[in-house]
Amino acid sequence: MSLIVQKYGGTSVANPERINAVADRVKRFVNKGHKVVVVVSAMSGETNKLLQFINDVNKKPDPRESDVVLSTGEQVTIGLTALAIQARGVKAKSYTGAQVKILTDNAHSKARIINIGTENIRKDLDNGYVLVIAGFQGADEQGNITTLGRGGSDTTAVAIAAALGADECQIYTDVNGIYTTDPRVVSNARKLKSITFEEMLEMASLGSKVLQIRSVEFAGKYKVNLRVLSSFEEDGEGTIITYEESHKMEDPIISGIAFNRDEAKVTVESIPDKPGIAYQILGPIAEQNIDVDMIIQNIGHDGLNDFTFTVNKTELDKTIEILENMKDHLGAKTIIGDSNIAKLSLVGVGMKSHVGVASKMFRTLSEEGINISTISTSEIKISILIEEKSLDAAVQSLHKAFNLDQ
Amino acid sequence: MSLIVQKYGGTSVANPERINAVADRVKRFVNKGHKVVVVVSAMSGETNKLLQFINDVNKKPDPRESDVVLSTGEQVTIGLTALAIQARGVKAKSYTGAQVKILTDNAHSKARIINIGTENIRKDLDNGYVLVIAGFQGADEQGNITTLGRGGSDTTAVAIAAALGADECQIYTDVNGIYTTDPRVVSNARKLKSITFEEMLEMASLGSKVLQIRSVEFAGKYKVNLRVLSSFEEDGEGTIITYEESHKMEDPIISGIAFNRDEAKVTVESIPDKPGIAYQILGPIAEQNIDVDMIIQNIGHDGLNDFTFTVNKTELDKTIEILENMKDHLGAKTIIGDSNIAKLSLVGVGMKSHVGVASKMFRTLSEEGINISTISTSEIKISILIEEKSLDAAVQSLHKAFNLDQ
Repeated sequence: MSLIVQKYGGTSVANPERINAVADRVKRFVNKGHKVVVVVSAMSGETNKLLQFINDVNKKPDPRESDVVLSTGEQVTIGLTALAIQARGVKAKSYTGAQVKILTDNAHSKARIINIGTENIRKDLDNGYVLVIAGFQGADEQGNITTLGRGGSDTTAVAIAAALGADECQIYTDVNGIYTTDPRVVSNARKLKSITFEEMLEMASLGSKVLQIRSVEFAGKYKVNLRVLSSFEEDGEGTIITYEESHKMEDPIISGIAFNRDEAKVTVESIPDKPGIAYQILGPIAEQNIDVDMIIQNIGHDGLNDFTFTVNKTELDKTIEILENMKDHLGAKTIIGDSNIAKLSLVGVGMKSHVGVASKMFRTLSEEGINISTISTSEIKISILIEEKSLDAAVQSLHKAFNLDQ
Repeated sequence: MSLIVQKYGGTSVANPERINAVADRVKRFVNKGHKVVVVVSAMSGETNKLLQFINDVNKKPDPRESDVVLSTGEQVTIGLTALAIQARGVKAKSYTGAQVKILTDNAHSKARIINIGTENIRKDLDNGYVLVIAGFQGADEQGNITTLGRGGSDTTAVAIAAALGADECQIYTDVNGIYTTDPRVVSNARKLKSITFEEMLEMASLGSKVLQIRSVEFAGKYKVNLRVLSSFEEDGEGTIITYEESHKMEDPIISGIAFNRDEAKVTVESIPDKPGIAYQILGPIAEQNIDVDMIIQNIGHDGLNDFTFTVNKTELDKTIEILENMKDHLGAKTIIGDSNIAKLSLVGVGMKSHVGVASKMFRTLSEEGINISTISTSEIKISILIEEKSLDAAVQSLHKAFNLDQ
């Protein structure tokens, strides 16, 4: 008998029929003797409908109130899913994030989980209930409803699995596993049977939108066994995310190619090259809860340097505004924003012990006539920024060059 | 400066445009220097959509889970309404029932309010916020979400007004006041400028669906000034519900005619006429949270009696089932259910001091050839059960006979 946390995304609970299919699967697991905790997202389409309502009444919505509205999406799903499970003769009980209680900070719309109270839910589990918990949401110390931001249901599932010490956390999506890259861009992209946490972290953060990065961080930190599966297949094995580097000598150097079209590039030009400048730039950005991804700074000249970083495209204007207000204080010459970029990353733990990956990557792109504006590397990835319009060609040529289809 | 509680029903917040209109009205009141608390229902249509979803996954839904799903309707509206008010430069903050906190018993789908915590909301009011509170919902001691049942938003509004000691509780609906009877049945039905609490209680309980009966009870108990207005008129005065009998000698004897097509009649025939029998019959009904309205028992014969009462048509089958199980224990001969009935009531405090109302009523119906099956009276009303198909003719003839159109 295992304790399994299953997370179902929006397309997996899109309508009553899909919810009934989820209940069927839950019952199969219960019949095998497992204890099951289900974490669900809003029915797909619901969140967008609610966002439209919000936009209709307020163009600059207060995030506290937006969270009140948006969190109803998951609340509908937990009730319906619990009812569907009950209709199959299995005891079930729903919990909102606040009811669990999933305590978060008060950063509305992108809150972080501080603690998960397990006393109530553990009692219900011991009493034979399937628990159905709302993903994506929690409550702060004052009881204000918070949301974890897009994809936050994955984080909820992993955090619950960690708090309960679950044997496995299964993430059901509309894809049947992790691929070497997006099959919509490279038609012969290949499904991976397993991938390491480190690789998955790089893949997730760089735009393979199967799992939210925070959920992978959580899973790695608390050693939660993660598996990505399709909710549309009855017996798929998906891709398991492992802790160990199982790669043998003959394993491929590169596991996959991730990319992201959602980022914009910001460059602060010609600032005095002195200690603390990076913090002076990024501190106020972080205070506004704007996530920064890549950060690049090369050596300076004549006491001046350029500082480049990327943010989500939707936050480019706000970021530029913050920096323009600080420009004189920073002593910077100009602030440049560019949203016509895409990020591409080669990822693979095998990369650590192999030289020549970078040069092969750059040569391949050069042969395609693709210009690289910015480069940043870690032990297991190489990330570059290129023009957005060149992205598909770049991914396809690299997928082929590194034999990822084999 | 007054403290005003305004309650908006489903049609008054049916879409973003209507919610914006609500925000406009709230701002007008704030600009006049009033403190405003807004209580809102779900957007009209939402509750039925959710009920359909529930029906699609479970034909006999657990009321705890149904409440989780249904309570999201109001939660969406509070967030949107707060955002619409904020868009007009007025500080606003939303509260779910659980956040207030509105403590109820655990009778899911028809919970009763036990207490309202006012500490948080009073602080926000003092800090200049318009509060937007979800009607129809609360939470029990364990934090389970409960709903107050259909029309419960009125009860929420009055209970909040009582708890805060508000100067007036305004109920905005799609009608502009209380009429002598339903204008859809009698075309020249007349709007009343005022009506007493006692009359309103009888009108509400008997089917004038403008206000929910519990809200009127609350208002009377805590001396809350209630006013019914239209959310579609900017300057309507509606109907005010008064504590005092302001009727003068020349005032009409009858204030209005209420009716209800939703009730079914249950008769327990030939039971031993002994003390405690009424409790033995109604106790088990009440335990199942089935509301009983009229109760009629005439004198017995030969140690036997008949006991008749009415319940909502939707609960007739369940009621019959309960009684059939107890039939032998009660020593009753037969249990008869009849759902083809309607209830009609003449209401008016003037009735107390006037004889002849009943005889005029019965004569009028007799002249129309309408048979009366059951009669029950109180100081200010006479209620009868008749065949449902005769209801319209009965209301029309009585409205004319008692000169209610003048």
